[in-house]
Amino acid sequence: MFQLDLVGIGMGNPDHLTQAAITALQSADLILVPHKGESKTLLSDLRMAICQKYLGSTSHVIGFEQPPRDPKIADYLTRVEAWHDGTAQIWSSLLKEHLPKGGRAALLIWGDPSLYDSSLRIADRLQTRFDQIDVSVYPGLTAIQLLTAAHRIRLNTLGAPVMISTGRQLVKNGFPNESDTLVVMLDGELAFQTLAPDPFDIWWGAYLGMKEEILIKGRLKDVSALISEQRVKARQKYGWIMDTYLLRRVLTSDH
Amino acid sequence: MFQLDLVGIGMGNPDHLTQAAITALQSADLILVPHKGESKTLLSDLRMAICQKYLGSTSHVIGFEQPPRDPKIADYLTRVEAWHDGTAQIWSSLLKEHLPKGGRAALLIWGDPSLYDSSLRIADRLQTRFDQIDVSVYPGLTAIQLLTAAHRIRLNTLGAPVMISTGRQLVKNGFPNESDTLVVMLDGELAFQTLAPDPFDIWWGAYLGMKEEILIKGRLKDVSALISEQRVKARQKYGWIMDTYLLRRVLTSDH
Repeated sequence: MFQLDLVGIGMGNPDHLTQAAITALQSADLILVPHKGESKTLLSDLRMAICQKYLGSTSHVIGFEQPPRDPKIADYLTRVEAWHDGTAQIWSSLLKEHLPKGGRAALLIWGDPSLYDSSLRIADRLQTRFDQIDVSVYPGLTAIQLLTAAHRIRLNTLGAPVMISTGRQLVKNGFPNESDTLVVMLDGELAFQTLAPDPFDIWWGAYLGMKEEILIKGRLKDVSALISEQRVKARQKYGWIMDTYLLRRVLTSDH
Repeated sequence: MFQLDLVGIGMGNPDHLTQAAITALQSADLILVPHKGESKTLLSDLRMAICQKYLGSTSHVIGFEQPPRDPKIADYLTRVEAWHDGTAQIWSSLLKEHLPKGGRAALLIWGDPSLYDSSLRIADRLQTRFDQIDVSVYPGLTAIQLLTAAHRIRLNTLGAPVMISTGRQLVKNGFPNESDTLVVMLDGELAFQTLAPDPFDIWWGAYLGMKEEILIKGRLKDVSALISEQRVKARQKYGWIMDTYLLRRVLTSDH
Protein backbone atom coordinates (compact mmCIF):
# COMPACT_ATOMS: atom_id res chain seq x y z
CA MET A 1 0.00 0.00 0.00
CA PHE A 2 1.30 3.40 -1.02
CA GLN A 3 0.62 6.93 0.17
CA LEU A 4 1.69 9.72 -2.20
CA ASP A 5 1.80 13.27 -0.80
CA LEU A 6 1.97 16.16 -3.25
CA VAL A 7 3.52 18.87 -1.10
CA GLY A 8 3.32 22.50 -2.18
CA ILE A 9 6.51 24.27 -1.10
CA GLY A 10 5.94 27.82 -2.31
CA MET A 11 8.52 29.51 -4.52
CA GLY A 12 11.82 28.57 -2.85
CA ASN A 13 11.85 30.25 0.55
CA PRO A 14 11.78 27.50 3.22
CA ASP A 15 9.85 29.81 5.59
CA HIS A 16 6.90 29.68 3.20
CA LEU A 17 6.06 26.06 3.93
CA THR A 18 3.05 25.44 6.13
CA GLN A 19 3.25 23.38 9.30
CA ALA A 20 1.18 20.70 7.57
CA ALA A 21 3.60 20.53 4.62
CA ILE A 22 6.59 20.27 6.97
CA THR A 23 4.91 17.43 8.87
CA ALA A 24 4.19 15.64 5.58
CA LEU A 25 7.85 15.86 4.56
CA GLN A 26 8.98 14.69 7.99
CA SER A 27 6.62 11.69 7.77
CA ALA A 28 7.78 10.53 4.33
CA ASP A 29 9.76 7.33 3.79
CA LEU A 30 10.84 8.61 0.37
CA ILE A 31 11.05 12.14 -1.05
CA LEU A 32 11.25 12.57 -4.81
CA VAL A 33 12.88 15.69 -6.24
CA PRO A 34 12.50 16.13 -10.00
CA HIS A 35 15.21 17.75 -12.12
CA LYS A 36 13.83 19.71 -15.02
CA GLY A 37 15.19 21.83 -17.85
CA GLU A 38 18.31 23.95 -18.12
CA SER A 39 18.16 25.37 -14.61
CA LYS A 40 17.75 21.98 -13.01
CA THR A 41 20.76 22.07 -10.74
CA LEU A 42 19.97 25.43 -9.19
CA LEU A 43 16.31 24.65 -8.64
CA SER A 44 17.16 21.23 -7.23
CA ASP A 45 19.55 22.94 -4.85
CA LEU A 46 16.69 25.11 -3.58
CA ARG A 47 14.56 22.04 -2.98
CA MET A 48 17.43 20.26 -1.23
CA ALA A 49 17.89 23.31 1.02
CA ILE A 50 14.23 23.00 2.05
CA CYS A 51 14.70 19.31 2.84
CA GLN A 52 17.86 20.02 4.80
CA LYS A 53 16.14 22.69 6.87
CA TYR A 54 13.31 20.42 8.00
CA LEU A 55 14.70 16.87 7.92
CA GLY A 56 17.25 15.25 10.24
CA SER A 57 18.62 13.11 7.42
CA THR A 58 18.24 13.47 3.66
CA SER A 59 19.39 9.97 2.73
CA HIS A 60 15.85 9.14 1.55
CA VAL A 61 15.66 12.22 -0.70
CA ILE A 62 16.07 10.99 -4.28
CA GLY A 63 16.60 13.22 -7.30
CA PHE A 64 15.36 11.99 -10.66
CA GLU A 65 15.42 13.16 -14.24
CA GLN A 66 12.08 14.21 -15.69
CA PRO A 67 11.60 13.05 -19.28
CA PRO A 68 11.78 15.89 -21.82
CA ARG A 69 8.68 16.87 -23.75
CA ASP A 70 8.85 15.37 -27.23
CA PRO A 71 9.29 18.21 -29.74
CA LYS A 72 8.29 15.85 -32.58
CA ILE A 73 4.69 15.91 -31.28
CA ALA A 74 3.33 19.07 -32.85
CA ASP A 75 0.02 19.39 -31.00
CA TYR A 76 0.43 21.01 -27.58
CA LEU A 77 -2.15 18.97 -25.70
CA THR A 78 -1.02 15.67 -27.24
CA ARG A 79 2.59 16.50 -26.38
CA VAL A 80 1.65 17.24 -22.77
CA GLU A 81 -0.39 14.03 -22.46
CA ALA A 82 2.55 11.97 -23.73
CA TRP A 83 4.82 13.71 -21.26
CA HIS A 84 2.46 12.96 -18.36
CA ASP A 85 2.38 9.28 -19.41
CA GLY A 86 6.17 9.13 -19.47
CA THR A 87 6.51 10.86 -16.12
CA ALA A 88 3.94 8.52 -14.51
CA GLN A 89 6.05 5.58 -15.72
CA ILE A 90 9.10 7.05 -13.98
CA TRP A 91 7.29 7.82 -10.71
CA SER A 92 5.91 4.30 -10.72
CA SER A 93 9.35 2.74 -11.18
CA LEU A 94 10.87 4.89 -8.45
CA LEU A 95 8.15 4.00 -5.94
CA LYS A 96 8.49 0.28 -6.64
CA GLU A 97 12.29 0.43 -6.54
CA HIS A 98 12.69 2.47 -3.34
CA LEU A 99 9.60 1.30 -1.43
CA PRO A 100 9.34 -2.40 -2.35
CA LYS A 101 7.03 -3.05 0.61
CA GLY A 102 4.95 0.09 0.11
CA GLY A 103 5.12 3.22 2.27
CA ARG A 104 4.80 6.95 2.17
CA ALA A 105 6.33 9.06 -0.59
CA ALA A 106 6.33 12.84 -0.96
CA LEU A 107 6.86 14.98 -4.04
CA LEU A 108 7.97 18.60 -3.67
CA ILE A 109 5.85 20.84 -5.89
CA TRP A 110 6.67 24.50 -6.66
CA GLY A 111 3.85 26.76 -5.59
CA ASP A 112 0.59 24.86 -5.14
CA PRO A 113 -0.24 21.49 -6.74
CA SER A 114 -3.59 22.87 -7.99
CA LEU A 115 -2.26 25.68 -10.16
CA TYR A 116 -0.67 25.07 -13.57
CA ASP A 117 1.02 21.97 -12.25
CA SER A 118 0.93 18.48 -13.71
CA SER A 119 1.45 16.38 -10.60
CA LEU A 120 -2.25 15.60 -9.97
CA ARG A 121 -2.73 14.53 -13.59
CA ILE A 122 0.35 12.32 -13.37
CA ALA A 123 -0.74 10.92 -10.00
CA ASP A 124 -4.11 9.95 -11.56
CA ARG A 125 -2.21 7.75 -13.99
CA LEU A 126 -0.67 5.80 -11.08
CA GLN A 127 -4.04 4.41 -10.01
CA THR A 128 -3.86 1.74 -12.72
CA ARG A 129 -0.27 0.83 -11.87
CA PHE A 130 -0.75 0.06 -8.16
CA ASP A 131 -3.27 -2.07 -6.28
CA GLN A 132 -3.71 0.68 -3.73
CA ILE A 133 -2.30 4.18 -3.79
CA ASP A 134 -3.77 7.11 -1.90
CA VAL A 135 -2.92 10.64 -3.01
CA SER A 136 -3.03 13.67 -0.69
CA VAL A 137 -2.45 17.33 -1.53
CA TYR A 138 -0.74 19.85 0.76
CA PRO A 139 -1.32 23.39 -0.50
CA GLY A 140 1.62 25.74 -0.83
CA LEU A 141 1.87 29.48 -1.39
CA THR A 142 1.56 30.41 -5.04
CA ALA A 143 3.55 32.97 -7.01
CA ILE A 144 0.32 35.01 -7.13
CA GLN A 145 0.16 35.30 -3.35
CA LEU A 146 3.83 36.18 -3.07
CA LEU A 147 3.48 38.76 -5.84
CA THR A 148 0.56 40.57 -4.21
CA ALA A 149 2.16 40.35 -0.75
CA ALA A 150 5.47 41.77 -1.98
CA HIS A 151 3.73 44.66 -3.75
CA ARG A 152 1.24 45.01 -0.86
CA ILE A 153 -1.70 45.03 -3.26
CA ARG A 154 -4.97 43.16 -3.35
CA LEU A 155 -5.57 40.62 -6.09
CA ASN A 156 -9.12 41.86 -6.73
CA THR A 157 -10.57 45.32 -6.87
CA LEU A 158 -13.60 45.85 -4.65
CA GLY A 159 -16.02 42.95 -5.15
CA ALA A 160 -14.76 42.42 -8.72
CA PRO A 161 -13.62 39.24 -10.51
CA VAL A 162 -10.06 38.15 -11.23
CA MET A 163 -8.78 36.10 -14.15
CA ILE A 164 -5.73 33.84 -13.90
CA SER A 165 -4.23 32.70 -17.17
CA THR A 166 -1.05 31.93 -19.10
CA GLY A 167 1.23 33.82 -21.44
CA ARG A 168 0.10 31.55 -24.27
CA GLN A 169 -3.56 32.47 -23.65
CA LEU A 170 -2.80 36.18 -23.46
CA VAL A 171 -1.08 36.06 -26.86
CA LYS A 172 -3.93 34.04 -28.34
CA ASN A 173 -6.96 35.79 -26.83
CA GLY A 174 -5.77 39.20 -25.68
CA PHE A 175 -6.77 40.82 -22.40
CA PRO A 176 -10.10 39.47 -21.09
CA ASN A 177 -13.30 41.50 -21.39
CA GLU A 178 -14.91 39.99 -18.33
CA SER A 179 -12.25 40.97 -15.80
CA ASP A 180 -10.18 44.10 -15.21
CA THR A 181 -7.53 42.06 -13.40
CA LEU A 182 -5.41 39.40 -15.08
CA VAL A 183 -2.61 37.38 -13.50
CA VAL A 184 -0.29 35.82 -16.08
CA MET A 185 1.69 32.69 -15.29
CA LEU A 186 3.96 30.39 -17.29
CA ASP A 187 5.06 33.27 -19.47
CA GLY A 188 8.62 32.96 -20.72
CA GLU A 189 7.98 35.41 -23.56
CA LEU A 190 6.56 38.43 -21.69
CA ALA A 191 3.26 38.25 -23.54
CA PHE A 192 2.19 41.66 -22.22
CA GLN A 193 4.32 43.11 -25.01
CA THR A 194 1.65 41.94 -27.47
CA LEU A 195 -1.09 44.03 -25.83
CA ALA A 196 -2.49 47.05 -27.63
CA PRO A 197 -1.35 50.24 -25.90
CA ASP A 198 -4.47 50.42 -23.76
CA PRO A 199 -3.91 51.82 -20.32
CA PHE A 200 -2.83 48.98 -18.08
CA ASP A 201 -0.94 48.94 -14.81
CA ILE A 202 1.45 46.08 -14.20
CA TRP A 203 2.94 44.60 -11.04
CA TRP A 204 5.79 42.23 -11.93
CA GLY A 205 7.97 40.11 -9.69
CA ALA A 206 10.73 37.53 -9.99
CA TYR A 207 12.38 35.28 -7.35
CA LEU A 208 9.40 36.12 -5.17
CA GLY A 209 10.00 35.80 -1.45
CA MET A 210 13.73 35.13 -1.95
CA LYS A 211 16.67 37.42 -1.21
CA GLU A 212 17.06 37.86 -5.00
CA GLU A 213 13.50 39.22 -5.30
CA ILE A 214 12.98 41.86 -8.01
CA LEU A 215 9.81 43.96 -8.13
CA ILE A 216 8.74 46.41 -10.81
CA LYS A 217 5.41 48.20 -11.02
CA GLY A 218 3.91 51.04 -13.01
CA ARG A 219 1.96 52.01 -16.08
CA LEU A 220 2.64 49.23 -18.60
CA LYS A 221 3.88 51.55 -21.32
CA ASP A 222 6.39 53.10 -18.88
CA VAL A 223 7.91 49.90 -17.44
CA SER A 224 7.48 47.28 -20.17
CA ALA A 225 11.01 47.75 -21.55
CA LEU A 226 12.52 47.86 -18.06
CA ILE A 227 10.93 44.54 -17.11
CA SER A 228 12.15 42.94 -20.30
CA GLU A 229 15.68 44.20 -19.70
CA GLN A 230 15.78 43.22 -16.02
CA ARG A 231 14.45 39.76 -16.84
CA VAL A 232 17.26 39.06 -19.30
CA LYS A 233 19.91 40.39 -16.91
CA ALA A 234 18.64 38.43 -13.92
CA ARG A 235 18.35 35.21 -15.88
CA GLN A 236 21.94 35.56 -17.01
CA LYS A 237 23.11 36.38 -13.50
CA TYR A 238 21.35 33.53 -11.64
CA GLY A 239 20.99 30.92 -14.40
CA TRP A 240 17.24 30.61 -13.84
CA ILE A 241 14.22 32.81 -13.38
CA MET A 242 10.67 32.33 -12.14
CA ASP A 243 8.47 35.38 -12.54
CA THR A 244 4.82 36.35 -12.76
CA TYR A 245 2.77 39.49 -13.15
CA LEU A 246 -0.59 41.09 -12.57
CA LEU A 247 -2.16 43.41 -15.16
CA ARG A 248 -5.01 45.74 -14.27
CA ARG A 249 -7.03 48.01 -16.55
CA VAL A 250 -6.53 51.52 -15.28
CA LEU A 251 -9.80 52.36 -13.57
CA THR A 252 -11.25 55.81 -13.11
CA SER A 253 -11.89 55.29 -9.38
CA ASP A 254 -9.49 53.99 -6.72
CA HIS A 255 -11.38 50.74 -6.23
CA MET B 1 7.26 54.14 14.63
CA PHE B 2 4.78 51.36 13.90
CA GLN B 3 5.02 48.09 12.02
CA LEU B 4 1.70 46.50 11.03
CA ASP B 5 1.77 42.87 9.87
CA LEU B 6 -1.27 41.52 8.04
CA VAL B 7 -0.93 37.80 8.68
CA GLY B 8 -2.87 35.31 6.56
CA ILE B 9 -3.87 32.38 8.78
CA GLY B 10 -5.74 30.12 6.34
CA MET B 11 -9.23 28.93 7.18
CA GLY B 12 -8.95 27.97 10.84
CA ASN B 13 -6.60 24.99 11.01
CA PRO B 14 -3.47 26.10 12.93
CA ASP B 15 -1.32 23.69 10.87
CA HIS B 16 -2.05 25.77 7.79
CA LEU B 17 0.04 28.73 8.93
CA THR B 18 3.40 29.16 7.23
CA GLN B 19 6.62 29.37 9.19
CA ALA B 20 6.88 33.03 8.19
CA ALA B 21 3.38 33.77 9.53
CA ILE B 22 4.16 32.01 12.82
CA THR B 23 7.36 34.04 13.19
CA ALA B 24 5.43 37.26 12.52
CA LEU B 25 2.92 36.41 15.26
CA GLN B 26 5.69 35.51 17.66
CA SER B 27 7.45 38.83 16.97
CA ALA B 28 4.38 41.00 17.56
CA ASP B 29 4.04 43.32 20.56
CA LEU B 30 0.28 43.46 19.98
CA ILE B 31 -2.09 41.10 18.16
CA LEU B 32 -5.50 42.39 17.14
CA VAL B 33 -8.38 39.93 16.70
CA PRO B 34 -11.54 41.40 15.19
CA HIS B 35 -15.00 40.17 16.17
CA LYS B 36 -17.48 40.30 13.35
CA GLY B 37 -21.11 39.38 12.78
CA GLU B 38 -23.31 36.78 14.39
CA SER B 39 -20.71 34.04 14.54
CA LYS B 40 -18.15 36.26 16.18
CA THR B 41 -17.55 34.23 19.31
CA LEU B 42 -16.89 30.96 17.50
CA LEU B 43 -14.62 32.50 14.91
CA SER B 44 -12.74 34.45 17.58
CA ASP B 45 -12.28 31.19 19.44
CA LEU B 46 -10.62 29.71 16.36
CA ARG B 47 -8.25 32.64 16.13
CA MET B 48 -7.47 32.45 19.84
CA ALA B 49 -6.68 28.73 19.44
CA ILE B 50 -4.15 29.65 16.75
CA CYS B 51 -2.55 32.23 19.04
CA GLN B 52 -2.47 29.77 21.92
CA LYS B 53 -0.78 27.12 19.79
CA TYR B 54 2.09 29.36 18.74
CA LEU B 55 2.51 31.95 21.53
CA GLY B 56 3.86 31.47 25.02
CA SER B 57 1.54 34.12 26.40
CA THR B 58 -1.60 35.64 24.91
CA SER B 59 -1.82 38.63 27.24
CA HIS B 60 -1.04 40.94 24.30
CA VAL B 61 -3.81 39.45 22.13
CA ILE B 62 -6.63 41.99 22.08
CA GLY B 63 -10.11 41.35 20.72
CA PHE B 64 -12.08 44.29 19.34
CA GLU B 65 -15.49 44.91 17.88
CA GLN B 66 -15.61 45.74 14.19
CA PRO B 67 -18.09 48.48 13.35
CA PRO B 68 -21.19 47.20 11.54
CA ARG B 69 -21.79 48.22 7.94
CA ASP B 70 -24.35 50.99 7.83
CA PRO B 71 -27.56 49.63 6.23
CA LYS B 72 -28.79 53.20 5.71
CA ILE B 73 -26.16 53.65 2.95
CA ALA B 74 -27.89 52.12 -0.06
CA ASP B 75 -24.98 52.04 -2.52
CA TYR B 76 -22.76 49.00 -1.98
CA LEU B 77 -19.42 50.65 -2.76
CA THR B 78 -20.21 53.76 -0.70
CA ARG B 79 -21.28 51.56 2.21
CA VAL B 80 -18.04 49.59 2.04
CA GLU B 81 -15.93 52.75 1.85
CA ALA B 82 -17.63 54.15 4.95
CA TRP B 83 -17.04 50.88 6.76
CA HIS B 84 -13.34 50.92 5.88
CA ASP B 85 -13.08 54.48 7.20
CA GLY B 86 -14.72 53.47 10.48
CA THR B 87 -12.53 50.41 10.87
CA ALA B 88 -9.36 52.42 10.18
CA GLN B 89 -10.41 54.77 12.98
CA ILE B 90 -10.68 51.83 15.39
CA TRP B 91 -7.36 50.24 14.37
CA SER B 92 -5.72 53.61 14.80
CA SER B 93 -7.11 54.09 18.31
CA LEU B 94 -6.10 50.57 19.35
CA LEU B 95 -2.52 51.01 18.11
CA LYS B 96 -2.14 54.33 19.90
CA GLU B 97 -3.72 52.99 23.09
CA HIS B 98 -1.81 49.72 23.36
CA LEU B 99 1.50 50.77 21.77
CA PRO B 100 1.96 54.35 22.99
CA LYS B 101 5.67 54.25 22.12
CA GLY B 102 5.17 52.48 18.79
CA GLY B 103 6.00 48.85 18.08
CA ARG B 104 4.91 45.88 16.08
CA ALA B 105 1.26 44.90 15.70
CA ALA B 106 -0.20 41.91 13.86
CA LEU B 107 -3.70 41.36 12.51
CA LEU B 108 -4.95 37.83 11.89
CA ILE B 109 -6.61 37.61 8.48
CA TRP B 110 -8.73 34.66 7.31
CA GLY B 111 -7.27 33.12 4.17
CA ASP B 112 -4.93 35.52 2.39
CA PRO B 113 -4.89 39.32 2.78
CA SER B 114 -4.94 39.75 -1.03
CA LEU B 115 -8.22 37.99 -1.76
CA TYR B 116 -11.60 39.57 -1.05
CA ASP B 117 -10.28 41.04 2.16
CA SER B 118 -10.41 44.66 3.29
CA SER B 119 -7.36 44.83 5.51
CA LEU B 120 -4.98 46.32 2.91
CA ARG B 121 -7.52 49.01 2.03
CA ILE B 122 -8.00 49.80 5.70
CA ALA B 123 -4.24 49.81 6.33
CA ASP B 124 -3.82 52.35 3.49
CA ARG B 125 -6.04 54.70 5.47
CA LEU B 126 -3.65 54.54 8.45
CA GLN B 127 -0.87 56.26 6.49
CA THR B 128 -2.42 59.65 7.13
CA ARG B 129 -2.97 58.95 10.83
CA PHE B 130 0.62 58.05 11.76
CA ASP B 131 3.95 59.72 11.10
CA GLN B 132 5.49 56.41 10.15
CA ILE B 133 3.75 53.08 9.74
CA ASP B 134 5.10 50.21 7.66
CA VAL B 135 2.73 47.52 6.46
CA SER B 136 3.82 43.97 5.61
CA VAL B 137 1.75 41.11 4.21
CA TYR B 138 2.20 37.44 5.12
CA PRO B 139 0.29 35.23 2.67
CA GLY B 140 -1.98 32.50 4.01
CA LEU B 141 -3.70 29.56 2.37
CA THR B 142 -6.95 30.54 0.70
CA ALA B 143 -10.26 28.68 0.70
CA ILE B 144 -9.60 28.01 -3.00
CA GLN B 145 -6.40 26.11 -2.26
CA LEU B 146 -8.01 24.12 0.54
CA LEU B 147 -11.00 23.32 -1.68
CA THR B 148 -8.92 21.97 -4.55
CA ALA B 149 -6.61 20.09 -2.16
CA ALA B 150 -9.51 18.45 -0.33
CA HIS B 151 -11.14 17.36 -3.60
CA ARG B 152 -7.72 16.52 -5.10
CA ILE B 153 -8.50 18.50 -8.23
CA ARG B 154 -6.61 21.09 -10.19
CA LEU B 155 -7.88 24.64 -10.29
CA ASN B 156 -7.28 24.98 -14.02
CA THR B 157 -7.84 22.60 -16.88
CA LEU B 158 -4.81 22.06 -19.11
CA GLY B 159 -3.29 25.46 -19.98
CA ALA B 160 -6.70 27.14 -19.60
CA PRO B 161 -7.74 30.26 -17.67
CA VAL B 162 -9.55 30.41 -14.35
CA MET B 163 -11.95 33.07 -13.10
CA ILE B 164 -12.37 33.92 -9.42
CA SER B 165 -15.44 35.90 -8.50
CA THR B 166 -18.21 36.46 -5.98
CA GLY B 167 -21.76 35.23 -5.53
CA ARG B 168 -22.98 38.76 -6.18
CA GLN B 169 -21.16 38.85 -9.56
CA LEU B 170 -22.47 35.42 -10.56
CA VAL B 171 -26.05 36.53 -9.96
CA LYS B 172 -25.46 39.77 -11.84
CA ASN B 173 -23.42 38.55 -14.80
CA GLY B 174 -23.99 34.80 -15.04
CA PHE B 175 -21.27 32.27 -15.76
CA PRO B 176 -18.32 33.81 -17.62
CA ASN B 177 -17.81 33.23 -21.34
CA GLU B 178 -14.05 33.60 -21.21
CA SER B 179 -13.34 30.81 -18.71
CA ASP B 180 -14.71 27.28 -18.24
CA THR B 181 -13.68 27.36 -14.57
CA LEU B 182 -15.21 29.71 -12.00
CA VAL B 183 -14.46 29.82 -8.28
CA VAL B 184 -17.17 31.60 -6.30
CA MET B 185 -16.40 33.25 -2.98
CA LEU B 186 -18.37 35.39 -0.52
CA ASP B 187 -21.58 33.65 -1.50
CA GLY B 188 -24.07 33.39 1.33
CA GLU B 189 -26.95 32.83 -1.08
CA LEU B 190 -25.69 29.88 -3.17
CA ALA B 191 -25.77 31.88 -6.38
CA PHE B 192 -25.24 28.74 -8.50
CA GLN B 193 -28.98 28.16 -8.09
CA THR B 194 -29.56 31.07 -10.46
CA LEU B 195 -27.63 29.44 -13.32
CA ALA B 196 -29.47 28.15 -16.35
CA PRO B 197 -29.42 24.34 -16.37
CA ASP B 198 -26.36 24.18 -18.55
CA PRO B 199 -24.09 21.27 -17.79
CA PHE B 200 -21.78 22.28 -14.97
CA ASP B 201 -19.82 20.24 -12.48
CA ILE B 202 -19.46 21.64 -8.97
CA TRP B 203 -16.97 20.99 -6.19
CA TRP B 204 -18.24 22.51 -2.95
CA GLY B 205 -16.62 22.58 0.48
CA ALA B 206 -17.27 24.03 3.93
CA TYR B 207 -15.06 24.23 7.06
CA LEU B 208 -12.17 23.43 4.73
CA GLY B 209 -9.17 21.81 6.38
CA MET B 210 -11.00 21.48 9.72
CA LYS B 211 -12.34 18.33 11.36
CA GLU B 212 -15.86 19.55 10.50
CA GLU B 213 -15.00 19.64 6.75
CA ILE B 214 -17.89 18.82 4.40
CA LEU B 215 -17.26 18.09 0.71
CA ILE B 216 -19.83 17.59 -2.04
CA LYS B 217 -19.12 17.20 -5.75
CA GLY B 218 -21.03 16.18 -8.82
CA ARG B 219 -23.09 17.38 -11.76
CA LEU B 220 -24.67 20.63 -10.58
CA LYS B 221 -28.23 19.56 -11.32
CA ASP B 222 -27.71 16.40 -9.24
CA VAL B 223 -26.17 17.94 -6.10
CA SER B 224 -27.51 21.51 -6.01
CA ALA B 225 -30.34 20.67 -3.60
CA LEU B 226 -28.07 18.53 -1.43
CA ILE B 227 -25.55 21.35 -1.01
CA SER B 228 -28.29 23.79 -0.11
CA GLU B 229 -29.70 21.38 2.49
CA GLN B 230 -26.32 20.50 4.00
CA ARG B 231 -25.39 24.16 4.23
CA VAL B 232 -28.48 25.01 6.28
CA LYS B 233 -27.99 22.00 8.56
CA ALA B 234 -24.31 22.68 9.17
CA ARG B 235 -24.85 26.34 9.88
CA GLN B 236 -27.48 25.45 12.46
CA LYS B 237 -25.25 22.81 14.01
CA TYR B 238 -22.06 24.89 14.31
CA GLY B 239 -23.45 28.43 14.47
CA TRP B 240 -21.25 29.59 11.57
CA ILE B 241 -20.22 28.46 8.13
CA MET B 242 -17.49 29.38 5.67
CA ASP B 243 -17.81 27.68 2.30
CA THR B 244 -16.72 28.09 -1.29
CA TYR B 245 -17.12 26.26 -4.56
CA LEU B 246 -15.68 25.68 -8.00
CA LEU B 247 -17.90 25.41 -11.08
CA ARG B 248 -16.62 23.92 -14.33
CA ARG B 249 -18.36 23.67 -17.67
CA VAL B 250 -18.57 20.01 -18.50
CA LEU B 251 -15.97 19.50 -21.21
CA THR B 252 -15.99 16.84 -23.86
CA SER B 253 -12.40 15.77 -23.16
CA ASP B 254 -10.78 14.96 -19.81
CA HIS B 255 -8.59 18.06 -19.86
